[in-house]
Amino acid sequence: MSVRNLRLVIRYDGTDFAGWQRQPGLRTVEETLETAIREITREPRVRPNVSGRTDAGVHAVAQVVNVYSTTRLPCDILVKGINAKLPDDVVVRSCDDVPQSFCANKDAVRKTYRYVVCDGGPRDPFLRRYAGHCWHRLDVDAMARAAACLVGRHDFRCFETEWPNRMSSTRTITRLTVSRFGETVWIDAEADGFLYNMVRAIAGTLMQVGRGHWPESRVAEILQSGDRRKAGPTAPPEGLFLLRVAYPNHLKLPDL
Amino acid sequence: MSVRNLRLVIRYDGTDFAGWQRQPGLRTVEETLETAIREITREPRVRPNVSGRTDAGVHAVAQVVNVYSTTRLPCDILVKGINAKLPDDVVVRSCDDVPQSFCANKDAVRKTYRYVVCDGGPRDPFLRRYAGHCWHRLDVDAMARAAACLVGRHDFRCFETEWPNRMSSTRTITRLTVSRFGETVWIDAEADGFLYNMVRAIAGTLMQVGRGHWPESRVAEILQSGDRRKAGPTAPPEGLFLLRVAYPNHLKLPDL
Repeated sequence: MSVRNLRLVIRYDGTDFAGWQRQPGLRTVEETLETAIREITREPRVRPNVSGRTDAGVHAVAQVVNVYSTTRLPCDILVKGINAKLPDDVVVRSCDDVPQSFCANKDAVRKTYRYVVCDGGPRDPFLRRYAGHCWHRLDVDAMARAAACLVGRHDFRCFETEWPNRMSSTRTITRLTVSRFGETVWIDAEADGFLYNMVRAIAGTLMQVGRGHWPESRVAEILQSGDRRKAGPTAPPEGLFLLRVAYPNHLKLPDL
Repeated sequence: MSVRNLRLVIRYDGTDFAGWQRQPGLRTVEETLETAIREITREPRVRPNVSGRTDAGVHAVAQVVNVYSTTRLPCDILVKGINAKLPDDVVVRSCDDVPQSFCANKDAVRKTYRYVVCDGGPRDPFLRRYAGHCWHRLDVDAMARAAACLVGRHDFRCFETEWPNRMSSTRTITRLTVSRFGETVWIDAEADGFLYNMVRAIAGTLMQVGRGHWPESRVAEILQSGDRRKAGPTAPPEGLFLLRVAYPNHLKLPDL
């Protein structure tokens, strides 16, 4: 009985989940997915490895997990079967067989997050689950200029919520853009990895610039200081989306 | 003490409401709005007139109501005050003083609805509250061609759910378009008025064409027949949005 390593791309609305990670008595994406997989493969235990945990309320457009299984069901049947068992706030978008050694977390070379803010008025009823909120109209150009200094390889400890056993707080941001889309502002961040709450701390900091509370130059000073207390507040989770995870060419995700 | 006639433009996510109209023991938009207005104006009774009731689960991007009040608060303070009292799935977007005779329902000259369908795969977790669903990829061009025969002045009784005391089932559709936006299909309908469930019945009928179950010519036959049983099923409410209501020039809505 050979063991397969299955890679799933999943999408979820994080609003009604207590985050990815299994916690006793709480509804989590991990446990919800695991239960659905078990019902289809009839295996007593399956343990999905995830590219990275997301917090309570955070969404994923294309989260990646891998799971070892002895099922013989073809991938397309697995997608349909698991989706039939999942509640409607999480869906499997694709499934493929990957080498035994593949790990969704360790093999990830790049991740992209988007932080969405609804600004310039009362909170839009259609965005309350899917965006942060700012009463003031944000100055997107100022935010974009202020963000530029964060691109590149830096120690980002000033944007990190403390996390035990973390090895290094140096990461490389390859892209950080701020743009307006109607009555929302999108902060897109691409990096080789992110520290705990890093995107939300960057969003909260850039919003201070966008509403005119802080000069643009303040962001570089915060980065230099390495002091979390100098940065802006952690923006709320409902605005954060894990957009995609990239792998090396020989482990590329299937097209959707 | 002079009485003002206040016109409000409101937006709501209909998911968690049992529709517009007040019903004992149910959470409705009417009662929710009324309660918030009363808390601000301190009047024992306010009775909003609405441009048209929406059903349970149906959304409004810009619903219009008018309400008589003796409050002396300026309009911008009323907007802020009422919004502070409203739950986050309904919001007042504007308020203006209109002539005593203005009636949001009777003075409406045109309404626009959009029906959104998420198609071609499993239901998107982010759209489950805001779109109908179709597993098959819909043929948008066929739907658009089939819809053309509905534009103009016709008796639309074949697309009506029975409704007591309705005078005439003749209406004029001034625009009916079907277009694709990413993984969703938008059916936009503009008319001088709509019968009960008319947009959802048209959407359900056009979807039968879009999935290839019915030939395009069938839609004209259904219209001709005047028989509700010949048309498609009423599409589910979560895909329907009241986009806007138009009034004559001297009663034009304020810009948002």
